[in-house]
Amino acid sequence: MLSTMAASELAALRAVYEPLTQSVRKLIDVTIRTQADAATATAAKDAIDRVTDELGTTLLEGSFGVQHTSDGQPMVWGNVVMGLRNPAAPPLIVHHEPDGRVWSDVVLGAAYEGPAGHVHGGVCAMLLDHVLGATAHKPGQPAVTGTLTTRYRRGTRLGCPLRLEAHVDRVEGVKTFAVGRITDPEGVTVEADGIFIHPR
Amino acid sequence: MLSTMAASELAALRAVYEPLTQSVRKLIDVTIRTQADAATATAAKDAIDRVTDELGTTLLEGSFGVQHTSDGQPMVWGNVVMGLRNPAAPPLIVHHEPDGRVWSDVVLGAAYEGPAGHVHGGVCAMLLDHVLGATAHKPGQPAVTGTLTTRYRRGTRLGCPLRLEAHVDRVEGVKTFAVGRITDPEGVTVEADGIFIHPR
Repeated sequence: MLSTMAASELAALRAVYEPLTQSVRKLIDVTIRTQADAATATAAKDAIDRVTDELGTTLLEGSFGVQHTSDGQPMVWGNVVMGLRNPAAPPLIVHHEPDGRVWSDVVLGAAYEGPAGHVHGGVCAMLLDHVLGATAHKPGQPAVTGTLTTRYRRGTRLGCPLRLEAHVDRVEGVKTFAVGRITDPEGVTVEADGIFIHPR
Repeated sequence: MLSTMAASELAALRAVYEPLTQSVRKLIDVTIRTQADAATATAAKDAIDRVTDELGTTLLEGSFGVQHTSDGQPMVWGNVVMGLRNPAAPPLIVHHEPDGRVWSDVVLGAAYEGPAGHVHGGVCAMLLDHVLGATAHKPGQPAVTGTLTTRYRRGTRLGCPLRLEAHVDRVEGVKTFAVGRITDPEGVTVEADGIFIHPR
């Protein structure tokens, strides 16, 4: 449970950085899809460089990492899959059910393309790694991937509602064996199983 | 071999869109790492939205797909791993050796984070999918992933020179069995094997 202080601190930080990140996500999409002429593209580049200079005067060293509110709540906001401050993240919103099942709904756009009109197979693997791994995570006890196997049944389309889901098959000591899949409105596109490890 | 026309057409398109994309890549990085105050973040958001509106007046429908120069050279510039017009792509530059080996050198920054200071395990899987798959690609005969297994030996650090490499283990009919790995200066961090299929 969040303390009142942490909750208002999180809300304040989120109000500053989430709209900025969402705007950069839209910019990524149009950067891929624009047919702008050279003059427009150059003017856009120059405007972006000015924003980057402005934001860059106060940078964290290295990467976002895991930061904490003043009373210790973790923020994994730089994460490439779920980070609300990472414009390259969809971001995935991961739901945990009381019975241990984990799921997430997402629509992936032009930024996630592999084969024309389809999600890159590697993106499917990336998102499944995250969702299967989430079945093994416990507060203060992150799990790391030991092995992940993805089996592709057919192409996963861009711009289509996708459900990612996973559950624990069994636990053996520090190892959690998880299984999961991606489905679109026509059924399963990718299946996965993985072993996730709580480092001793 | 590129015709002269295709080569100059590609160079012209690249000169327009590659600098723009590179600028958006830098913007992604600072968006994650900035400690800008609310006023600065809001001004940045507004400036970005203006650029997005400008670039968005001439959008391709859907996604970039595979486009072609006037004489048929393919451009996979929207690809999430190697697309030179995709700001979310590192982008990976994939080298093919005459003996069939495939390799790529890359340094991954804050945008690819999973565990603090480390590359997300799912990103490792995504990049290995791409590099292993590249061993099976032939001009006009793309291969799709059938199965991919990644085994994590230890964490892969952000900001560190990484080598991705893959080769064909064997070919059985439409199936190419490939193996590969990621190494950093201290050795192997992730190993992978996969089956890639040429659709009949």
